[in-house]
Amino acid sequence: MPPPRRILGLDPGTVAFGWGVIEAAGSRLSAVAYGVLRPKRTLERPARLAEIRRGLVEVLETYRPAVAALEEAFIGLDPRAALRVGEARGIALASAAEAGMPVLEIPPATVKKAVAGNGRASKEQIARMVRALLNVRDEMPEDASDALSVAIAGSSRMDFVTRP
Amino acid sequence: MPPPRRILGLDPGTVAFGWGVIEAAGSRLSAVAYGVLRPKRTLERPARLAEIRRGLVEVLETYRPAVAALEEAFIGLDPRAALRVGEARGIALASAAEAGMPVLEIPPATVKKAVAGNGRASKEQIARMVRALLNVRDEMPEDASDALSVAIAGSSRMDFVTRP
Repeated sequence: MPPPRRILGLDPGTVAFGWGVIEAAGSRLSAVAYGVLRPKRTLERPARLAEIRRGLVEVLETYRPAVAALEEAFIGLDPRAALRVGEARGIALASAAEAGMPVLEIPPATVKKAVAGNGRASKEQIARMVRALLNVRDEMPEDASDALSVAIAGSSRMDFVTRP
Repeated sequence: MPPPRRILGLDPGTVAFGWGVIEAAGSRLSAVAYGVLRPKRTLERPARLAEIRRGLVEVLETYRPAVAALEEAFIGLDPRAALRVGEARGIALASAAEAGMPVLEIPPATVKKAVAGNGRASKEQIARMVRALLNVRDEMPEDASDALSVAIAGSSRMDFVTRP
């Protein structure tokens, strides 16, 4: 069996930035740590982004994952929202690449399929499956659960990794 | 007369990322340095963003500006383009805030008005005025000239600075 590998899942946002680290030993998955970075709402946007970056670098240094995964951005109709999401994603992508990690971008439907066997699973189904697959009893914030779902999807796609 | 202050202007993009540092001594402006970060096109996007960040941090450490300025993002109709611009802007905003700098976001028409006296000045007029105002003889890349134009606009708005 190959040695266990750590996968970092990210759910980038400027208000709440979810992260979750899992360990994959063969097909056995476990949660290492997860959380949500929530910069103070009173800060200006640049300072909020800097706080997210600091938090993310701390996660990278603490858990030293082998690979980072995030969902391909959903391109809705609102360019202003896309711009804001892009700001948080830029920090995620650059920080992971700077730490020498390959970065996986996975389509949302592929994440759902990997986690719940169904590309159209509901948010609740995904959250339930994340906890079941990782054997986590406690409730967890939605942004952390979303990040862990991407890490789970990433664990089955380590061969399609984009080298930085 | 107040001591000279350095203003960093930025024109964020993932293909070409323009920057320019000017010094303002009262109303007298001069160019300190300028350039364009162009990450290798063969790199994947995360690595390109990491390279931009490295270059920007080097500019910040070398020239130690007091304030950073960039244009408010133009929100066009293409959310995918907005997402990509957001990725580069996130790095600009976070890096400046991390370095403890206030960040000014200035509307494009205000930049044009500050540089050429006309909010609808052409790209060529702006480029010409930038070189005239900063007393630069040499041709310069468009992205550097754009970044310097934002720095010039920022120099007249130092009192409206957004604290990080």
